[in-house]
Amino acid sequence: MFKIVVVLVAIFSCSSAINPGPVVHATKGEVWPKPQQQEKSQDFFVIRPHTFSFKAPDNIGCPNFLNDALTRYWTIIATATLKKSWTKQSLLDLDSSLGNLDSLTIELTGECASEEILPAFGDDENYSLTVSAEESLLSAATIWGVLRGLETFSQLIYTEQDVLVINATSITDFPTHPYRGLLLDTSRHFEPVSIIFKTLDAMAYNKLNVFHWHLTDDHSFPYKSRAFPELSDEGAYHPVATVYEQSDVKRVIEYARLRGIRVVPEFDTPGHTRSWGVSHPELLTSCYTGDEANGQLGPMDPSKNTTYEFISQLFAEVTDVFPDSYFHIGGDEVDFECWKSNPDLTAFMAANDLASYEKLENYFIQHVVDILDGLGSNYLVWEEVFVNGVDLPESTVVHVWKFNGGPATLNQVTKAGKYALYSSCWYLSNLHSGGDWNLFYDCYPLEYVDTDEQRQLILGGEVCMWGEYVNEHSVMQRVWPRASAAAERLWSAANVKDMTDAQRRIEEHACRMNRRGIEAQPPNGPGVCL
Amino acid sequence: MFKIVVVLVAIFSCSSAINPGPVVHATKGEVWPKPQQQEKSQDFFVIRPHTFSFKAPDNIGCPNFLNDALTRYWTIIATATLKKSWTKQSLLDLDSSLGNLDSLTIELTGECASEEILPAFGDDENYSLTVSAEESLLSAATIWGVLRGLETFSQLIYTEQDVLVINATSITDFPTHPYRGLLLDTSRHFEPVSIIFKTLDAMAYNKLNVFHWHLTDDHSFPYKSRAFPELSDEGAYHPVATVYEQSDVKRVIEYARLRGIRVVPEFDTPGHTRSWGVSHPELLTSCYTGDEANGQLGPMDPSKNTTYEFISQLFAEVTDVFPDSYFHIGGDEVDFECWKSNPDLTAFMAANDLASYEKLENYFIQHVVDILDGLGSNYLVWEEVFVNGVDLPESTVVHVWKFNGGPATLNQVTKAGKYALYSSCWYLSNLHSGGDWNLFYDCYPLEYVDTDEQRQLILGGEVCMWGEYVNEHSVMQRVWPRASAAAERLWSAANVKDMTDAQRRIEEHACRMNRRGIEAQPPNGPGVCL
Repeated sequence: MFKIVVVLVAIFSCSSAINPGPVVHATKGEVWPKPQQQEKSQDFFVIRPHTFSFKAPDNIGCPNFLNDALTRYWTIIATATLKKSWTKQSLLDLDSSLGNLDSLTIELTGECASEEILPAFGDDENYSLTVSAEESLLSAATIWGVLRGLETFSQLIYTEQDVLVINATSITDFPTHPYRGLLLDTSRHFEPVSIIFKTLDAMAYNKLNVFHWHLTDDHSFPYKSRAFPELSDEGAYHPVATVYEQSDVKRVIEYARLRGIRVVPEFDTPGHTRSWGVSHPELLTSCYTGDEANGQLGPMDPSKNTTYEFISQLFAEVTDVFPDSYFHIGGDEVDFECWKSNPDLTAFMAANDLASYEKLENYFIQHVVDILDGLGSNYLVWEEVFVNGVDLPESTVVHVWKFNGGPATLNQVTKAGKYALYSSCWYLSNLHSGGDWNLFYDCYPLEYVDTDEQRQLILGGEVCMWGEYVNEHSVMQRVWPRASAAAERLWSAANVKDMTDAQRRIEEHACRMNRRGIEAQPPNGPGVCL
Repeated sequence: MFKIVVVLVAIFSCSSAINPGPVVHATKGEVWPKPQQQEKSQDFFVIRPHTFSFKAPDNIGCPNFLNDALTRYWTIIATATLKKSWTKQSLLDLDSSLGNLDSLTIELTGECASEEILPAFGDDENYSLTVSAEESLLSAATIWGVLRGLETFSQLIYTEQDVLVINATSITDFPTHPYRGLLLDTSRHFEPVSIIFKTLDAMAYNKLNVFHWHLTDDHSFPYKSRAFPELSDEGAYHPVATVYEQSDVKRVIEYARLRGIRVVPEFDTPGHTRSWGVSHPELLTSCYTGDEANGQLGPMDPSKNTTYEFISQLFAEVTDVFPDSYFHIGGDEVDFECWKSNPDLTAFMAANDLASYEKLENYFIQHVVDILDGLGSNYLVWEEVFVNGVDLPESTVVHVWKFNGGPATLNQVTKAGKYALYSSCWYLSNLHSGGDWNLFYDCYPLEYVDTDEQRQLILGGEVCMWGEYVNEHSVMQRVWPRASAAAERLWSAANVKDMTDAQRRIEEHACRMNRRGIEAQPPNGPGVCL
């Protein structure tokens, strides 16, 4: 990390070596995240949108799903690639092209079970792509692979003299990590569905495949529950303006599905639940000062059966609404102070042989885990649940997030044989003056553990956008292209870590996102998107 | 500063005291920056846009200028105040209002010289505003005071139960500092005119009155010169897409003028000029490695008469295009290394008895200063020009910007009897995780000097948005409401510094800017703009 900082400082320091123009010259037609294997020729084709089309056999699986994707990418290629395409000079002699590329054939070698197919953990996302004089073919065993390949194809195209071109290219590609997520917190600030859609678009442009929807927290409860509408009626910032109706949730899930993105909801418990208590104070622990309740409410009350009955009913609804087989149950930052102050809990612990507050938390989580087991759902938990010694079933995924000691915790979690997800280095709320995507790029969880067995337990990672200091006006700018750094480390091969190479590609990628309507900020200092 | 950080940390730390809802409850109808004197009653009026109007005597000065301002504010009041105005509950019983406020009378007690009137340094911006059962009157001696008073009036209005209300209020107001600026760098990234317009709108909403347009720098030269169009043809990022045509500059100046905002252009010399050298390499110093020119270009070549002839011609144009009597000539961060490497400069210095590179810089600046004197223009310079001992005429304004030692430099500049402008604490490119407006708020230049005589030389300050890491998609979010913190310290009385009071008002102010189309980010953590 030190070396990288030095490199960037050297570029921007005032010295006589300063050059006019952008500090980093963007690549043209390079793919982000970088494919696993790619051969690229100097030879190129011209693409004329009005004559270009995708071709697929009549009997291809899931034609409706595919039609949606192909329409989307045709539009991106024809419009967002050409937009603002003036170039000062061309490096290509267009007359020397291999001719027009009039079609790309789409081949789905596997079955597509149904038009309602859902992305799921462990999906095959492999694809191969050939653009050559002999054939132009995108081939994949799954619809998900087709999606990833279409994204790559669209990124290979660039503009020269107001004309779209693509180099003859051969790619074989697949993700290094199966779980590549982005967390969006819609509790601290509400984000309109339009922003979530745009976030999902940008995720697809970065081949991220899990939208971790941190729906609720202390400050607001924007999810409009069928069973308990009062949770958002009273616990949202506003009961109408800042809630996700059931129809909104459905639209988000569908929008994500069509882009091969899973939606993993989080309903954090037993801490971070203050907003639940606006309508249901009985769920939370009464905090005491001395012998008297002081009117404040703490984490959920783990001593009452009614707490678990409520959770059981709500989670039954939530696992029905959200089709993904995984559910994030939180478990972070449980404040023991309020629990300690409450005499009923002290009595309960004594009666139940719970010798510590960690054990009390364990008691709570165990009940929630049992509820989810009953619902047939898998779950993720924040690292405290593991660190505090809660007994977790084998399928549980432990989400490592603390910045300090992150690598050690990851090593510890996987050493204990647990599945892990890593976020410690990918907190977008951590700001740094100047560009900082390099800090997010310089992070590779697989290097932080001792053995190959442990590496196999690392499913991937998540870049986290907590909502305290971003609103609908600033969240896209804050996330992109900083999240792209994580996206490449999660998708590409371990040896794709050259900062100088990445610098030029992320410059292009940020401009590409701008052209597609994503308000990415500049990654590298002075520059321009043309 | 330490105390403030502690306060904010206390609010956001996880403790059982956490409350649902926004962490900071916005005020309603409070003014930012806070007026010098204000009395506010619990009594209030209702405003119904369809019956509300501004009234001015038929013979009022500059009716066209005023008409533009009144139309603008009527629209803001009627639309931007009501937008998204749902409230969970009202604190007011509307039936107890003093009735409808049907008009505000505008009184201009002084002359208005001409419809083409330009804002100028030292303008009277005082106004008084009364909203009472007896009379509702905005009175000012100048058109500028009327503008400031209209802004205040618009901010007094808030929404209750979908109805606009305003409390009976009496205000006498004037700025503490006559110079309250915002620097925007349009060289490192080009900002479209639409973004500059929006920036000017936001400046008006914060009573800032100087737009410091840092037009050119090393990376690009976006100003399309009449005399030297090749400067932008070759030195802009793009000769068409990223230049300010003469018509664009005129529109910016006019847009600013109508809002009482001066436009002070900066053409930084002799450093930060690398982009000039794309079309005019002869203006810049050839850097040497050993005995040979290495092809790199450094700061302007101070040894050639042709350099000054060029500057003279360009600045004659620029002082004609920009009507303000002040011009920022830069002078910061001159890199002596290239000068040192060049044997012609060594010989020139020997021949002209210039014993140091500071003296060489002095020689250059002296020529530029003479050029501007000849053009009848006043000027501002960055602090290095003073620190390096350049002889400056009395009217020169020294712009203090370095973060380290800023207060000491300000003290030194004013002790030497020079006018000063302060920016050291107001660099918006300095990022901090979490909200950081408090850091910008905790800065008061008048406290940094020893005597009242020195204080009289402090004209004000500027908040600086350098363009390395912001583009058109992120600059509004980066600037607002962080610049608002500086705006209040520059306008309001010295004792307006209570962070807890400011916190609630800036929460309202950020939401107010959002409603008016300014993409301000959230200042205080979890919250919502309704």
